[in-house]
Amino acid sequence: MIDEERKKTIEELVHQKSWLALREELAEWPLPEVADLLLELEKADRVLVFRMLPRRISGDVFSYMESEHRKGLLKDLTDEETRHLLASLTPDDRTTLFEELPGQVTQHLLNLLSAEDLHETRQLLGYPEESVGRLMTPDYVAVRPEWSVSEALDHIRNKGKRSETINVIYVTDDSWKLLDALELQKFILARSNDKVQQIMDDSFVSLNAFEDREQAVFVMQKYDLFALPVVDTDGVLIGMVTIDDVFDVAQKEATEDFHKGAAVTPLKTSYREASVWSLYRKRVGWLMTLVVVNLASSGVIAAYEDMLSAAIALAFFIPLLIDSGGNAGAQSATLMVRAIATGDIKMDQWVKTISKEMKVGIAIGLTMALGSMILGYFRGGFEIGIVVGLTMITLVVAANIIGTLLPFLLLRLRFDPAVASGPLITSIIDAVGLLIYFSIATVVLGHMG
Amino acid sequence: MIDEERKKTIEELVHQKSWLALREELAEWPLPEVADLLLELEKADRVLVFRMLPRRISGDVFSYMESEHRKGLLKDLTDEETRHLLASLTPDDRTTLFEELPGQVTQHLLNLLSAEDLHETRQLLGYPEESVGRLMTPDYVAVRPEWSVSEALDHIRNKGKRSETINVIYVTDDSWKLLDALELQKFILARSNDKVQQIMDDSFVSLNAFEDREQAVFVMQKYDLFALPVVDTDGVLIGMVTIDDVFDVAQKEATEDFHKGAAVTPLKTSYREASVWSLYRKRVGWLMTLVVVNLASSGVIAAYEDMLSAAIALAFFIPLLIDSGGNAGAQSATLMVRAIATGDIKMDQWVKTISKEMKVGIAIGLTMALGSMILGYFRGGFEIGIVVGLTMITLVVAANIIGTLLPFLLLRLRFDPAVASGPLITSIIDAVGLLIYFSIATVVLGHMG
Repeated sequence: MIDEERKKTIEELVHQKSWLALREELAEWPLPEVADLLLELEKADRVLVFRMLPRRISGDVFSYMESEHRKGLLKDLTDEETRHLLASLTPDDRTTLFEELPGQVTQHLLNLLSAEDLHETRQLLGYPEESVGRLMTPDYVAVRPEWSVSEALDHIRNKGKRSETINVIYVTDDSWKLLDALELQKFILARSNDKVQQIMDDSFVSLNAFEDREQAVFVMQKYDLFALPVVDTDGVLIGMVTIDDVFDVAQKEATEDFHKGAAVTPLKTSYREASVWSLYRKRVGWLMTLVVVNLASSGVIAAYEDMLSAAIALAFFIPLLIDSGGNAGAQSATLMVRAIATGDIKMDQWVKTISKEMKVGIAIGLTMALGSMILGYFRGGFEIGIVVGLTMITLVVAANIIGTLLPFLLLRLRFDPAVASGPLITSIIDAVGLLIYFSIATVVLGHMG
Repeated sequence: MIDEERKKTIEELVHQKSWLALREELAEWPLPEVADLLLELEKADRVLVFRMLPRRISGDVFSYMESEHRKGLLKDLTDEETRHLLASLTPDDRTTLFEELPGQVTQHLLNLLSAEDLHETRQLLGYPEESVGRLMTPDYVAVRPEWSVSEALDHIRNKGKRSETINVIYVTDDSWKLLDALELQKFILARSNDKVQQIMDDSFVSLNAFEDREQAVFVMQKYDLFALPVVDTDGVLIGMVTIDDVFDVAQKEATEDFHKGAAVTPLKTSYREASVWSLYRKRVGWLMTLVVVNLASSGVIAAYEDMLSAAIALAFFIPLLIDSGGNAGAQSATLMVRAIATGDIKMDQWVKTISKEMKVGIAIGLTMALGSMILGYFRGGFEIGIVVGLTMITLVVAANIIGTLLPFLLLRLRFDPAVASGPLITSIIDAVGLLIYFSIATVVLGHMG
């Protein structure tokens, strides 16, 4: 990682305008660290250092930078510099960049592309957002089954320099229909006279370019793949997705789910890059919406105000009961949300899951009810003890059911189930909990009192 | 994926005891799907089908199965079968298996290993749990800088059959000190007379076997690597970690963080595999602990019981205020927890982060205060409006500060910050919120009333 000393050296070189020394110093650094360094420099220095980078690495360094800094840097480059930069990006990194930029900027940048790159980029941008098509690169290497291994290796040597990775080689027929996906090592380990079809295993997994990018995460993880071929509806090979990009997607999706689960509209940048104003906007909407849900709880209290005045000891248990219910609901909901996100539970397993969660709820509810009944007895007497205990078991079971059902319901309605796991479920269960509490209190206290 | 029809075919073949046909049918399936199929079969059939698998694939299929099923299957195999199975596992998969099993079973299985495998396994199990060492495999291919590319390729062909992947080839000196990590494609693209040292770029990233496995996630994601060399403290190459295993770790760690954030002790298995009893145990402990925190809230209410009786309109706003505070706190805490987990924010950035969150808190607090003040005015008059509005802004800012500090504090105390994001923060802020609410009410109502 970057230590302060190395950063200082660079800063000095910049201020002494020792461009050649700077170039030499940076040429030896791993690219992600050059990207980190740029991030740490003053804005003015950043452009200067970026311009100094050897052209063959500047595209890669740019791709390693965070989106906010990429945008900033682009503004400071001349059209000519931008043209070179865009040409040096890999097709998938170019698509990602265009996705992040405002429409007008993208339009301007498209004008700077070569005819070939423009065609390619237009095509990739034609796939839906968050689709597999947006992640793929068309720079793969494909061979024919009737070629010999040594012919194939010659072809790989020829085409491989342009390809992002040649760890996986594809086999297609004359019309580019995908026949197989073979690891490069198979070619190395085979005899050179063998035909490609002799080393084929006819077993491969591919995805359609229009599928959701989360499918790529599932499939690559399930099959332990480094690269995944992407085909059109006729099975024709149109690109490949590499595991580094899919890994990034998995981390991004997990972060989005964390944020959604905490009632934060997912940030488009990292937290560190996010401005106070954007954090405000991403949070306040949900908080205000939840106020509406919370008003239901307040409404329940208002409806039972007389009762509460008459038996103020009931107030003591409000936080205890509604928080316990909310917590149990959040547990169930989070277990569901994550199990759905990782493919552990499917939509059609909801009945089985509910029954499991009901059993867990009854067990937990009984345990919690026993404890809180004793508390209630000491605090408010026998009747309050009964009310609190009965409320606890009913509420925990109800919370488990709501916490299990809500994610499935959201999934069914084509919303992201992730929003169910935190504040939303807590707020809903608070209102339900108060209603259960006061209803039980009315019956028990009315009957016994 | 497995359709019902294919599953039925298999079941029929099992019941007709058509072992040869079964063997042929399964030989064409991708291995993860064979693992899925086993999972769907009756327990008795499962062992039968597993025994039928060609020996060269049974180890891989076993590795693709989920841990509960692996344990079940092991029980039904004879010692001789287990011996063959263990021998066919890759060293890293073997370590993972032993990690999952109870100590006694592991001891028994160690007796079934060959002398060489036993030595290797003992060594891998010697690294701490969740360390990089536990993830690595010693089956890598290494070459010497003075060799020619064609000599190196011969060596790769020789050793490569045993290696999990030869996508990355390591260069070491005579004492096995790691000098470089080169992608296989570099050897393919180079001229065969070139020396290995001519294609070396002297730029590689490695990890120490004792480092936390989360480091492997960070590093592989940052540098877009397929395989990561693992060294001892002298820089000697002792193994490699491949991206498929690290990808699994990243997903597992995210799931653990989700569960911890919802006050669930992380499950060791998938949700689907978890029993009702284990779900009960993983949840009830935290819920009971949180009851203790909730009692603080109840204590605050008890302390202000007289005031609440006198101005029962205050009760109306309790859920609204404490939920809003809890939600804002959960937002901050979750943003922190995830930013810390992904390496976006470091420990030493806590001061900067707090100041950012305070600004966000003030902006959100003002917005929310305005809304709730109006509500308060209509519901309980001018004074209540003032109390509610003042409480909201104070509470939201306090919630943001607590939500930001708690994860850093936990990190500092070497706890996992993930536990801060959900119910824990909500419960703490509920107590704080009630205290703020009644304190402000005392001052305002006492002063004005």
